[in-house]
Amino acid sequence: MTKFAWSIKKFSKNSKARIGTISTPHGKINTPAFIFCATKGALKSFTTNEAKKNNTQIILSNTYHLMLQPGSEVIANHGGLHKFINWDGPMLTDSGGFQIFSLGHGSVADEIKGSSNIKRNKSLLNINEEGSLFKSYVDGAYKLLSPEKSIEIQRNLGADLILVFDECTPFHVDKAYTNSSMKRSHRWATRSYNRFASDILYKSGYGSAGEQKLYGIVQGGIYDDLREESIDFNLNKIDTFGIAIGGSLGSSKEEMYRVVNFTAPKLGHMNPIHLLGIGDPRDIWSLVKSGVDTFDCVSPTRLARHGSALTKGKVGKINIKNKKYTNQISPIDETCKCSTCSSYTLAYIHHLFKADELLGLQLVTAHNIFFMNKLMSDIRNAIDNDNLDDAEKEWLS
Amino acid sequence: MTKFAWSIKKFSKNSKARIGTISTPHGKINTPAFIFCATKGALKSFTTNEAKKNNTQIILSNTYHLMLQPGSEVIANHGGLHKFINWDGPMLTDSGGFQIFSLGHGSVADEIKGSSNIKRNKSLLNINEEGSLFKSYVDGAYKLLSPEKSIEIQRNLGADLILVFDECTPFHVDKAYTNSSMKRSHRWATRSYNRFASDILYKSGYGSAGEQKLYGIVQGGIYDDLREESIDFNLNKIDTFGIAIGGSLGSSKEEMYRVVNFTAPKLGHMNPIHLLGIGDPRDIWSLVKSGVDTFDCVSPTRLARHGSALTKGKVGKINIKNKKYTNQISPIDETCKCSTCSSYTLAYIHHLFKADELLGLQLVTAHNIFFMNKLMSDIRNAIDNDNLDDAEKEWLS
Repeated sequence: MTKFAWSIKKFSKNSKARIGTISTPHGKINTPAFIFCATKGALKSFTTNEAKKNNTQIILSNTYHLMLQPGSEVIANHGGLHKFINWDGPMLTDSGGFQIFSLGHGSVADEIKGSSNIKRNKSLLNINEEGSLFKSYVDGAYKLLSPEKSIEIQRNLGADLILVFDECTPFHVDKAYTNSSMKRSHRWATRSYNRFASDILYKSGYGSAGEQKLYGIVQGGIYDDLREESIDFNLNKIDTFGIAIGGSLGSSKEEMYRVVNFTAPKLGHMNPIHLLGIGDPRDIWSLVKSGVDTFDCVSPTRLARHGSALTKGKVGKINIKNKKYTNQISPIDETCKCSTCSSYTLAYIHHLFKADELLGLQLVTAHNIFFMNKLMSDIRNAIDNDNLDDAEKEWLS
Repeated sequence: MTKFAWSIKKFSKNSKARIGTISTPHGKINTPAFIFCATKGALKSFTTNEAKKNNTQIILSNTYHLMLQPGSEVIANHGGLHKFINWDGPMLTDSGGFQIFSLGHGSVADEIKGSSNIKRNKSLLNINEEGSLFKSYVDGAYKLLSPEKSIEIQRNLGADLILVFDECTPFHVDKAYTNSSMKRSHRWATRSYNRFASDILYKSGYGSAGEQKLYGIVQGGIYDDLREESIDFNLNKIDTFGIAIGGSLGSSKEEMYRVVNFTAPKLGHMNPIHLLGIGDPRDIWSLVKSGVDTFDCVSPTRLARHGSALTKGKVGKINIKNKKYTNQISPIDETCKCSTCSSYTLAYIHHLFKADELLGLQLVTAHNIFFMNKLMSDIRNAIDNDNLDDAEKEWLS
């Protein structure tokens, strides 16, 4: 008897948008939902208890970072990531592919994934059929990550939802490379699936960290025929619980919208659909209409660290460090019910950033996390009430 | 009708230790108590709400830092420091003297006050009868701080308890300098008192920030005759609510104990006695027996930032970054009831420090704050139960 389930509660009348529920052994996720990044096992400057109070449903951690520090064995010894980081809600881990390739290429993949601040240390040493060899940023040691190894590490980590190992193809490569990379990622996905399905731990009561479910990843860059091929692979050639949309989404928002709108509807209703690395509220309003169920991105917490608080409207954020807030005796948003807006003024938070006090980024992080969860809740309500377009207009006006 | 009061509930049988209550318009402080440093208006990486949950009674902020950023007018416009930083409990501000002189001299005053990491930028430009001229570390502007100016700024900030302006004499100067510095600090104390007592805002309903009470400061370095003179000045020449022990406490723990034990008992019972800048639990156990009622120090939060968690026993702390904690699946202290020890293991906090995650220092800060408040609560109980010596032995064993 599995504790996992995916069910759609209602479809939108005027789009492919839908509200649903992903059930996991650690609780339910009401979709559309946003997944916050606890990259190295910690939401940046934020406790899991606070995240829960700010309505967070699910967080993700990164195989790549955790395999290097503290090492997945340490986490397995600890009874898995849930216990290690004190988060008893649903969790996802990525496969490590994205970080190896975006950190390793030092490529534009960073940019389209909104991670332009990552150090470009060209740590990727070699990539071949077996997997990819890279240099640890922690101690300089050589590390091989393969589909089998990625799954084993994710088994050790023990998140509810895990991903197949893939190459995150950058957007500046040509169609031929995108095609061969996609085909290799499909072979890697099959190997990931085989390792996942045959895992001795998995079959013998699911190991210490509990049962898990696998997500496939749709590749194919900006090329419709390749996307079609990858959609067919994910729907018909491997049997995964969920499907993520990965690979390059092009070099502009328009291209991204086109690729997602081409891909997501063809994935149907049998699997929850995750879009990798997208977190701009404007994009989310648009892309739920293609049928995307979950999103993840480092942006809410990263923006907070740089002093940007998320707000409704077209611009979508304010710069806390702006001098005009020196005497602003009102919160970031008068209507916001987050712990920061209930207790602190812009004048104070502005002062904290000017004075280099860590508390400043913590307070904005709380607001941004609450904000994203409110956004997703408003989207779910709008789908439920058949007024998604109106709600979007109101939010962005 | 004043809302301020000082009352002693009970004296220890075998020492000068006492338990009492300082009442302020923002609540009562049960003494002996520890005052946590929110230097620039923020407990380092910690919200005031969390501080309260961890049993914090009173916090202090620094005139020197706040006059430079954001400026005391900004805080006055905001309705005072309590509203600015969202802390509705008792607060104290220092006069700015200590920072001007310790930062300005770049002297050993840093070390004996436990602040050896402060940048030594020799910002103090001139000191004369009027006050002291220094260069702002924020914008390089010349600033004069005088007794009158310090009180005006502290009136703007609006803490419950405020301090007279003094020179914090370093310990390496000779007796002649200590003597003349003390006499000038006495003249400055009189001017501080006069400005405080004659303040128009103060007399006309206490301004926006509410009523305040003044503390004098006992000077005199390590010289008994000078300490006697300063004690006489503070008890008989100005009329303050509380009295702080300041100036140099010597170059060793033994000298500090001697100076405090010489000074505090002579201050009697009519005023709460504060000891400036001391926060080592071993010192606190010892110095409450001289009759000290309140202590302050940056050490609990500073130690946390450097990965040291406070513990009972002779050593008094553990280094979270020590490799031996990699797989330690138990909290910092099994018996501790703080939010960190209830939720997180040493293995996880060790990982956070290794991974440069800010959450690590936040979690240790929570523990250290709770720890200091538990220490003071245990001391109060021990005085109440007449077993202070036994309780100290047990705590330090």
